[in-house]
Amino acid sequence: MKAVIVEEPEKISVVEREIPEITANQVLLKVKAAGICGSDVGIYHGKNAFATYPRVVGHEFVGEVVKVGANVKNAIVGDHIAVDPVVSCGHCYACKIGHHNVCQSVNVMGVHRDGGYQEYVAVDQDQLNQISKDIPWEIAATIEPYSIGAQVAHRGRLTSEDTVLICGAGPIGLIILQVAKMKGAKVAILDIVESRLEKAKQMGADLVVNGKTTDIVDAMERFTNGEGFNLIYEATGNVKILQTCIQKLPSQAGRIVVLGFSTVEFPIRQVDIMSKELEIIGTRLNNYRFPEVIHWFKEGKVQPKEIVTNTFHFTDADKAFKYNDENLDKVLKIILTF
Amino acid sequence: MKAVIVEEPEKISVVEREIPEITANQVLLKVKAAGICGSDVGIYHGKNAFATYPRVVGHEFVGEVVKVGANVKNAIVGDHIAVDPVVSCGHCYACKIGHHNVCQSVNVMGVHRDGGYQEYVAVDQDQLNQISKDIPWEIAATIEPYSIGAQVAHRGRLTSEDTVLICGAGPIGLIILQVAKMKGAKVAILDIVESRLEKAKQMGADLVVNGKTTDIVDAMERFTNGEGFNLIYEATGNVKILQTCIQKLPSQAGRIVVLGFSTVEFPIRQVDIMSKELEIIGTRLNNYRFPEVIHWFKEGKVQPKEIVTNTFHFTDADKAFKYNDENLDKVLKIILTF
Repeated sequence: MKAVIVEEPEKISVVEREIPEITANQVLLKVKAAGICGSDVGIYHGKNAFATYPRVVGHEFVGEVVKVGANVKNAIVGDHIAVDPVVSCGHCYACKIGHHNVCQSVNVMGVHRDGGYQEYVAVDQDQLNQISKDIPWEIAATIEPYSIGAQVAHRGRLTSEDTVLICGAGPIGLIILQVAKMKGAKVAILDIVESRLEKAKQMGADLVVNGKTTDIVDAMERFTNGEGFNLIYEATGNVKILQTCIQKLPSQAGRIVVLGFSTVEFPIRQVDIMSKELEIIGTRLNNYRFPEVIHWFKEGKVQPKEIVTNTFHFTDADKAFKYNDENLDKVLKIILTF
Repeated sequence: MKAVIVEEPEKISVVEREIPEITANQVLLKVKAAGICGSDVGIYHGKNAFATYPRVVGHEFVGEVVKVGANVKNAIVGDHIAVDPVVSCGHCYACKIGHHNVCQSVNVMGVHRDGGYQEYVAVDQDQLNQISKDIPWEIAATIEPYSIGAQVAHRGRLTSEDTVLICGAGPIGLIILQVAKMKGAKVAILDIVESRLEKAKQMGADLVVNGKTTDIVDAMERFTNGEGFNLIYEATGNVKILQTCIQKLPSQAGRIVVLGFSTVEFPIRQVDIMSKELEIIGTRLNNYRFPEVIHWFKEGKVQPKEIVTNTFHFTDADKAFKYNDENLDKVLKIILTF
């Protein structure tokens, strides 16, 4: 079979490999579609702190079951599957208190172990989520990024009462926008790419702010009547923006959810956190959110078609990565097909 | 009547005032005891960002009802009362989502309006909490600081599963220690005053760490088997310690609760917050926690007698403040008597 491998930063190849053997607790999945995420791009460019090389990347993938291990109870041949890429130990502190996504030995398919950019993958039964055969494969591949939207809604305790700011109108920012609008919140979104802001407007953003041309603090004052944002999502990874989010933009009892993983230091002050009883909340991967997202897809509550902008055959992954880098104003989500 | 007034920073006087008039929704309370808190000391020294002058300070106070407004339903003459000093509007975002302690127009007795260092105070019926006539007044005056212990337990989601670090073994740190041990957690506590650490040991701390003589990161490694602290309380106000708490001491899914309100900037990194899914959680005042604390006192679940180290008559408040400043190794909580 063919597999796409990042051998080292900036070096991507299509190689021949043996079809994986499965254990009694695994299924063999024939991969049908796989999304390109910002973190895959980061692994490609050597900017992901968690990845090791060589690596078959891809953690947003779906496929059809072609072989079933003897102990597997939740799948049969022919099932359509969305794979939750988060593998955890089940017995450390984080697992015990229900945060298996930050398990002490968390192991993510496509990051710490090989992922979905290959024709066949062996997948543990715990990672399998059944999906309807009516969902096109390219759309189903967005279930994983939507699980991030579900996770951050949960982390920020998002409700219809909230006035929300989303910093960054890339795929994840726009998915969070869809989730926040679904929940009934009032939403402003910030970016510097006008085409992305236009898309956000079409998706129902109540305010779009171009950070190049508009002062975000002024815009916040007007939009929130001076009260500040109740819930802020920082999805740009820009520490200057996060610093402004903490110092100047939150309401009393506000939550700031941090999605980026920049290693750049930036300053904060105790008094800003304590006086408003702020919460600065990290969020990582997803915590068993696939069933919730699959329900959203089934009920038509979110618009994944709006997120998928391009498809490439998986053997053209190198072209897809380059196209992604060079067309930030046009591309949201590229799906690799098989 | 006599009142203790901080006229401006460093200037404290005992003055004659009229006994306050009450409205139909208030009671007149004859004050019986009032604690000195670090924030009262801050107001005295001009180091409290929230206070205005001149001010009758004191937010930890108890007393007996001597007069009752026509509309008051929850008190009669002779009742013993612990006053919750937090006054809120009831209709802003923070109040609506159950965080009235950070109400947009929060107003704290003894900080934003006159407090308990006077012979009589007019108190709104919403601030009244009935206490048993069996509790000595000096002990009852510690209900308010214990409400901070209850609040921070709630904010940090403290459970018996947690391995906890408390930075600072002053009165609030030791109260948090008592609460954490009551909840069944495993607790380490950090300070630089040996006598306070000795007291912490007596109160059941599983590990005491003198930050002057012991490396806290090494101590954490040994105490938590390298897993880090699940829950950290930063009650020293020292930003260097808070920085270490965020960067080096938490476990996966750890929470860092910030009690101080230093205005000094210090650096953090997104990757530290995101990779462990940390939460940096502000906490301020208390959020209707008096009934819980009164229950603890009734059941003997906490040891307030261990916290009260000295009493002064309220007309000697100036001496009490000076004694407090000069005897940090001996004093925990000074109670003013009336």
